[in-house]
Amino acid sequence: MNKQKLTLLDILPVTASGILTPEMTMDMTKYLMDTTEVIHKQITEGSVTIESEYDEVYSAPYVVSLAVEEASTREIDGIFSNCFGDPGVRAIREKLKVPVFGGFEPAIYLGLGLGDILGIVTVLKNVVPMIRAAIVRAGLERRVTSLRTLDMSVIELQNREKLMSNLYVECKKAIEEDGVSVLVMGCTGIVGVTDEMTARLKEDGYDVPVLEASQCAMILTELYARMGLYQSRQTYMEPPEK
Amino acid sequence: MNKQKLTLLDILPVTASGILTPEMTMDMTKYLMDTTEVIHKQITEGSVTIESEYDEVYSAPYVVSLAVEEASTREIDGIFSNCFGDPGVRAIREKLKVPVFGGFEPAIYLGLGLGDILGIVTVLKNVVPMIRAAIVRAGLERRVTSLRTLDMSVIELQNREKLMSNLYVECKKAIEEDGVSVLVMGCTGIVGVTDEMTARLKEDGYDVPVLEASQCAMILTELYARMGLYQSRQTYMEPPEK
Amino acid sequence: MNKQKLTLLDILPVTASGILTPEMTMDMTKYLMDTTEVIHKQITEGSVTIESEYDEVYSAPYVVSLAVEEASTREIDGIFSNCFGDPGVRAIREKLKVPVFGGFEPAIYLGLGLGDILGIVTVLKNVVPMIRAAIVRAGLERRVTSLRTLDMSVIELQNREKLMSNLYVECKKAIEEDGVSVLVMGCTGIVGVTDEMTARLKEDGYDVPVLEASQCAMILTELYARMGLYQSRQTYMEPPEK
Amino acid sequence: MNKQKLTLLDILPVTASGILTPEMTMDMTKYLMDTTEVIHKQITEGSVTIESEYDEVYSAPYVVSLAVEEASTREIDGIFSNCFGDPGVRAIREKLKVPVFGGFEPAIYLGLGLGDILGIVTVLKNVVPMIRAAIVRAGLERRVTSLRTLDMSVIELQNREKLMSNLYVECKKAIEEDGVSVLVMGCTGIVGVTDEMTARLKEDGYDVPVLEASQCAMILTELYARMGLYQSRQTYMEPPEK
Amino acid sequence: MNKQKLTLLDILPVTASGILTPEMTMDMTKYLMDTTEVIHKQITEGSVTIESEYDEVYSAPYVVSLAVEEASTREIDGIFSNCFGDPGVRAIREKLKVPVFGGFEPAIYLGLGLGDILGIVTVLKNVVPMIRAAIVRAGLERRVTSLRTLDMSVIELQNREKLMSNLYVECKKAIEEDGVSVLVMGCTGIVGVTDEMTARLKEDGYDVPVLEASQCAMILTELYARMGLYQSRQTYMEPPEK
Amino acid sequence: MNKQKLTLLDILPVTASGILTPEMTMDMTKYLMDTTEVIHKQITEGSVTIESEYDEVYSAPYVVSLAVEEASTREIDGIFSNCFGDPGVRAIREKLKVPVFGGFEPAIYLGLGLGDILGIVTVLKNVVPMIRAAIVRAGLERRVTSLRTLDMSVIELQNREKLMSNLYVECKKAIEEDGVSVLVMGCTGIVGVTDEMTARLKEDGYDVPVLEASQCAMILTELYARMGLYQSRQTYMEPPEK
Repeated sequence: MNKQKLTLLDILPVTASGILTPEMTMDMTKYLMDTTEVIHKQITEGSVTIESEYDEVYSAPYVVSLAVEEASTREIDGIFSNCFGDPGVRAIREKLKVPVFGGFEPAIYLGLGLGDILGIVTVLKNVVPMIRAAIVRAGLERRVTSLRTLDMSVIELQNREKLMSNLYVECKKAIEEDGVSVLVMGCTGIVGVTDEMTARLKEDGYDVPVLEASQCAMILTELYARMGLYQSRQTYMEPPEK
Repeated sequence: MNKQKLTLLDILPVTASGILTPEMTMDMTKYLMDTTEVIHKQITEGSVTIESEYDEVYSAPYVVSLAVEEASTREIDGIFSNCFGDPGVRAIREKLKVPVFGGFEPAIYLGLGLGDILGIVTVLKNVVPMIRAAIVRAGLERRVTSLRTLDMSVIELQNREKLMSNLYVECKKAIEEDGVSVLVMGCTGIVGVTDEMTARLKEDGYDVPVLEASQCAMILTELYARMGLYQSRQTYMEPPEK
Repeated sequence: MNKQKLTLLDILPVTASGILTPEMTMDMTKYLMDTTEVIHKQITEGSVTIESEYDEVYSAPYVVSLAVEEASTREIDGIFSNCFGDPGVRAIREKLKVPVFGGFEPAIYLGLGLGDILGIVTVLKNVVPMIRAAIVRAGLERRVTSLRTLDMSVIELQNREKLMSNLYVECKKAIEEDGVSVLVMGCTGIVGVTDEMTARLKEDGYDVPVLEASQCAMILTELYARMGLYQSRQTYMEPPEK
Repeated sequence: MNKQKLTLLDILPVTASGILTPEMTMDMTKYLMDTTEVIHKQITEGSVTIESEYDEVYSAPYVVSLAVEEASTREIDGIFSNCFGDPGVRAIREKLKVPVFGGFEPAIYLGLGLGDILGIVTVLKNVVPMIRAAIVRAGLERRVTSLRTLDMSVIELQNREKLMSNLYVECKKAIEEDGVSVLVMGCTGIVGVTDEMTARLKEDGYDVPVLEASQCAMILTELYARMGLYQSRQTYMEPPEK
Repeated sequence: MNKQKLTLLDILPVTASGILTPEMTMDMTKYLMDTTEVIHKQITEGSVTIESEYDEVYSAPYVVSLAVEEASTREIDGIFSNCFGDPGVRAIREKLKVPVFGGFEPAIYLGLGLGDILGIVTVLKNVVPMIRAAIVRAGLERRVTSLRTLDMSVIELQNREKLMSNLYVECKKAIEEDGVSVLVMGCTGIVGVTDEMTARLKEDGYDVPVLEASQCAMILTELYARMGLYQSRQTYMEPPEK
Repeated sequence: MNKQKLTLLDILPVTASGILTPEMTMDMTKYLMDTTEVIHKQITEGSVTIESEYDEVYSAPYVVSLAVEEASTREIDGIFSNCFGDPGVRAIREKLKVPVFGGFEPAIYLGLGLGDILGIVTVLKNVVPMIRAAIVRAGLERRVTSLRTLDMSVIELQNREKLMSNLYVECKKAIEEDGVSVLVMGCTGIVGVTDEMTARLKEDGYDVPVLEASQCAMILTELYARMGLYQSRQTYMEPPEK
């Protein structure tokens, strides 16, 4: 059963162009099986970037529609809503019978297996309440106790030097001041940082995993697809017909 | 300061027509001050009714746009997104500086002052995960421990006989089996039931408050407006300009 | 039903004289409806001020007796035990069928509607365990996470300059160091500070609500009275006859 | 240091006469060291029995005064406020430097060492909210998950046949339905039942500890006294002078 | 990087012979990549089966020694201690730098991505406290709320008819009485049941995932190995030299 | 029943020689009754000291075997596994019917009776996850909120000057920075420090209890033995026969 060719759908839930470079896309899929194909789609209406609950509300319906439409026109084995705010994720789960994830859950659930205390480093203070809500909804406030910000917008993440510099500062504080064991990058736009960050922290004596959200999402969605698993209909019931 | 005439905006976040009867609207506003005016608006695009996260996603942007638009054209002192699923509420809070509530928070927060253990009775199993998420997000899982369903759709609520019959059964079970002290009606379409339900439960020896969500939302929004209070900008930051 | 004239009883649960000035009383009632009358009473036996559980024990029975006596001689629609330690509140609730509040619950429950994380600023370290117990009893330790002290006795609060100065320092620390979104004044003797404190914090870029406990208690008690609501007899059972 | 003769003060915080028989007193002290003396005192003003928060409020000040007075006239090494509602306990702790306990904490803390899940069987539904508050204040809601009532008043406890019969029913239900491992008698008037109840449960295949609150309180207070320990002044600060 | 051939070590932490049939082994590895090799080892000293903390203590050191020894003699990319009690897992994690799992964590963490409420069905009442401790240690008591037993010993699991019959009863109760959305098999000896159990539950209208612990452990360990991830040294520090 | 001569078994679960001096043994037993005899035994195989979960795994079976063997050859009334990591404790409880404790539970449970917030000071960072797990397993994360390290190995504790110096620093920080009310020494090798540490903290104005784990364990085990109590068979079931 694990031999089949899988097709995963990656939906970029923002309208900004050029926000994911080819390098970033490659990084995000680099641990997938050779036989897994990834289709990348982007919404064409909605928010430019998602940096607030306001932004999220305006992108979500387009994400859901895109997912449902794609799934009706070809075989899709799993879906990734490419944002740490999980836009549209629960709605798609109600509608389809394939595994569906945003950026939050996969990185966090994989992080649980690697250490006792997780910390998230995200972009702006504005999304902190939204992420805190995701932690609490997952029932994980005892495991995920640190939530730090780079004070950079999503667009600014393309300034790689500033990104690596701010990220290093916050990762170290997460470890030293907040007692964090596992670091989770709290924006799917923080990509391609693991190797360098891991190395720099090791030099400081900290051998800790650094998890990129989109990488975790792709490989975990693939895992569920390989096992033929999708969300329980006891949590995600089919929306009633009107 | 408490003398001023207040204007509250009630947004019906579904497109179904005739879903709120004049009696229901009257019931919902009956405890407001004489000087408070309520403007009722309904979205014209979005979901017919909200009975899933899928439905919620499609209504939310229209609710937010309607709220922002109304607030830009006249003096609005408070906003009610008339659904227990709180569609668009947090997004509007980020955007405006007036108190904004859906059906969940006001009924629950008022219920906290009336007894130790709260129970919610809602429409369908489909919305249970959404409501459970709201309870957890509010940090209230130790206070709100019972969540029961009528097994009736929102449209069916207009069958008043069935509503009262099913509601009575679930309210009694909430008290007797779940140890509930305060009953919260978990759909803003459950309106005009308090007097009868309270009386029937008293006959059984249970003197417990029965809170209707829309009634609680209107009067609590009015209270915040009287005090000139609105949401903290430390939780609800203004969405970043793009 | 909301047209009736309401009578609220404000009980000062300490014997110190002059502790509430006319200005403070005016501040406390300023958001009430014109038609609401407030009767102010003070116990004549008990503790001078309440700054410990020891003090609370000695005032509570006099508060309860005063409440029960007043309620037996005239129509009372709601009762406020004017102290953040809620002296006698639960006992009165068992005895009477009108809404009864101390200073803690109303300010906290109203604060829940305004932001994710609440912080309390109170008088002395001595009352911290008592307030922490109230937070935990309310099941709100995830929402109310900051508890700071002015290091001033209740009597000293009349030194307004020192009060405003210390209060500003602690409010800022609550926001900046503890991540607080909503500030609750943790002593009913901290009155008339909202406007100035809000303005000063806004100058620092913090647009956060500042809630005075007695103001919140009066208006929320009035709200319950308008709705004809009182505590559940499933939490507050009538004391058994002996 | 453990050689010294200790004197423990047992305060009966109710005015009912004959409520503790000599057999009950003997049972309560039977595990104390030979060298420990127990002085039994009863308040002469206050509530007849404590079966509500209302009752508790009226007894507490007399308990505190009696404790402080006794401690000022002779060497007292520990104090027991003989009621599961812990009347006056925290106030006395602020005032004196000897260990002070009511019935709740000792039985519960000793129970923690004997099994994962504790259950309390108490007298009337009226005291359930008070006991639930004590569980939560102790931070033990994950360990103490069952709270059952005999539906008997404190006075009725003297009907031993009914007591044993009801108690057996509730203990069995606590084990079989609630998964309880350790049984705590939730009223200090439930005395002299351990041997019989343990034996009956063993016959049913349940080898579980049955803890009487006053027995636990006496021996644990003695233990702290032997070690020269008393409550931390960081939790129980001395009440400020006025 | 994901092209490499991986070698996983499966340690059977009990001395009973014939406890894993070839069919069970095949089932456990059926979702692994073709390029992944699994080495199966069994301890030769220790407990016959693990059905208590007593059993666990006696097997754990042999599991740890076997893991460390194997890892020193060949390239091992991940280790599975084949028991839901996770014998030796945390000790091995301190000692080696490859991912190490028992049966509990992988099934639970994968279950988190599939539904809100998880339920475990295990063998005997004896292991319930051990599993409850694992749930609490993982900080997941709000997500994993149902824990049921088959009342069958590990050896008895080979009676497939009884296994399937008892399992079906408990799975249905978990869904209907405990509100479970995702079912986790709480013993690594419960193997090869997913297809049949899923089908039978679907006939009853329940479309819920049924997770086998050893299958989840193998594939999740493989996933971490593919990503080059292992446990954080901030949680699992190297044991100090003596 | 309390007159009998009791025999307690103290098992040193490490093979290091000279780790407990006669002074330390005396200190540990100094509050026991004259009539209580303590038998000291040490394992001869296992770990030299316990400073990791790895160490714990290798000592535990020898502790369990020694306990069971001793209990089979003479009358033992209670057992102490002399390490804060509680090696073998739960396994022995399943096997025998006498009270069995390690260092963690007694000190913590006694601490609960002395103040609201407990703090632990232990030896090395390596044992922090193990102790945090014990806190969580006990359900006490709201009461035990501070966990500090001396950065000293168990062997180094014999450097008394360094011990007292580091301990004083950490105890003060626990009080001043973490809000701790009760201090628990988080290694059974920290012995004989209470008097000096209490005195030094009092000089700084902090009157807080300082609890040594082995002293608490001995006297609490004796207390249970005096009452004829042992662990519930509903939590600690007898290991199934194979």
